[in-house]
Amino acid sequence: MNDKSKKVPDVVIKRLPRYYRYLGELLNQDIKRISSNALSEKMNVTASQIRQDFNYFGGFGQQGYGYNVEYLYGEIGDILGLNDGDTMVIIGAGNLGKALASHGTFERRGFKLVGIFDNSPDVIGTVINGREVMDVKGLEDFITRNRVDIGVITVPRAAVEETVEKLVKSGVKGLLNFSYAELKLGHDVAVENVHLSDPLMTLSYKIKQSKE
Amino acid sequence: MNDKSKKVPDVVIKRLPRYYRYLGELLNQDIKRISSNALSEKMNVTASQIRQDFNYFGGFGQQGYGYNVEYLYGEIGDILGLNDGDTMVIIGAGNLGKALASHGTFERRGFKLVGIFDNSPDVIGTVINGREVMDVKGLEDFITRNRVDIGVITVPRAAVEETVEKLVKSGVKGLLNFSYAELKLGHDVAVENVHLSDPLMTLSYKIKQSKE
Repeated sequence: MNDKSKKVPDVVIKRLPRYYRYLGELLNQDIKRISSNALSEKMNVTASQIRQDFNYFGGFGQQGYGYNVEYLYGEIGDILGLNDGDTMVIIGAGNLGKALASHGTFERRGFKLVGIFDNSPDVIGTVINGREVMDVKGLEDFITRNRVDIGVITVPRAAVEETVEKLVKSGVKGLLNFSYAELKLGHDVAVENVHLSDPLMTLSYKIKQSKE
Repeated sequence: MNDKSKKVPDVVIKRLPRYYRYLGELLNQDIKRISSNALSEKMNVTASQIRQDFNYFGGFGQQGYGYNVEYLYGEIGDILGLNDGDTMVIIGAGNLGKALASHGTFERRGFKLVGIFDNSPDVIGTVINGREVMDVKGLEDFITRNRVDIGVITVPRAAVEETVEKLVKSGVKGLLNFSYAELKLGHDVAVENVHLSDPLMTLSYKIKQSKE
């Protein structure tokens, strides 16, 4: 359905998870249809932007009476690959690793956590959310044997390089990077860098604006 | 310096923290100047987009030989309000709250953590990163007395509404919301909603694309 001749801009891709989340909420409220205006208002994006966004993926056949919520939710989920059952491991069982391991939303979105790794003897063998933390020494073997799709990196900065090398070598397809380092890899490994201080800086900007 | 007649689009605002981070790295490497092309390549944004972005704030006087890194870093920091010394409290001392309380980058960006709150007797009084967790019953009084700017919300979904109400009533200027709920408030309280599963969904999209 994705027209490969049109490269989808990053800003559009970044909006897909928001559409998906919002449509999921509508589904929970048993809402079957939504007009592009109502969707626009909720998403804080113009109705014409929404149509443009959806046109990258074939348009989702909006009619006069709006979008079919369940259909749209399913299509966007497919586009996002949420029905592919991607598996993931978390490397680094500190507070952030623990928080992510216990983050129910990941599972609800279709991702399967299959392992948590750390290098500290004090942490290896402890149990997080019903799962025993494994020794990072076994990481490559584990990934290869289980064909793990995604590595979630929450290790300290000094350990990032080695961790990334191991993950890439053993064949993960994507990295979700919470370390401070901004990773850029070759085309065969996708990367999303998450910087927790970015939204705080954006908030600071908004606060400053509201004061002026 | 901000030309108030032009409303700065959200996508531009969202790029400011990225510019700031990247310029900070250049500074650490003692790099004094950068061409708009080099900046463009690193940021994955076209050079003309960068000029457009900067024009919202007066342009930063790029000359033939590029941008002055230190000047640009300082200006963007000012625009982001990072020199205002904003104070913040974290509500919810679970794994995510602990991770954020120990997240050195917040402090490096100029934000001051002044308190951590929880409602659980098991957690109140424990020490996180040198700071004693306080009873959430004292939250409003604490915020009012200390004129706290920002509330960081990491409480479970069921506690969000009450927490937000307390924060707003006691006069915080901004909320950084990590709970699943998508908050929208009036004009006097700025909000940034952070959804940790969004980057994972974006990553999933990229993985799916690379397979096709």
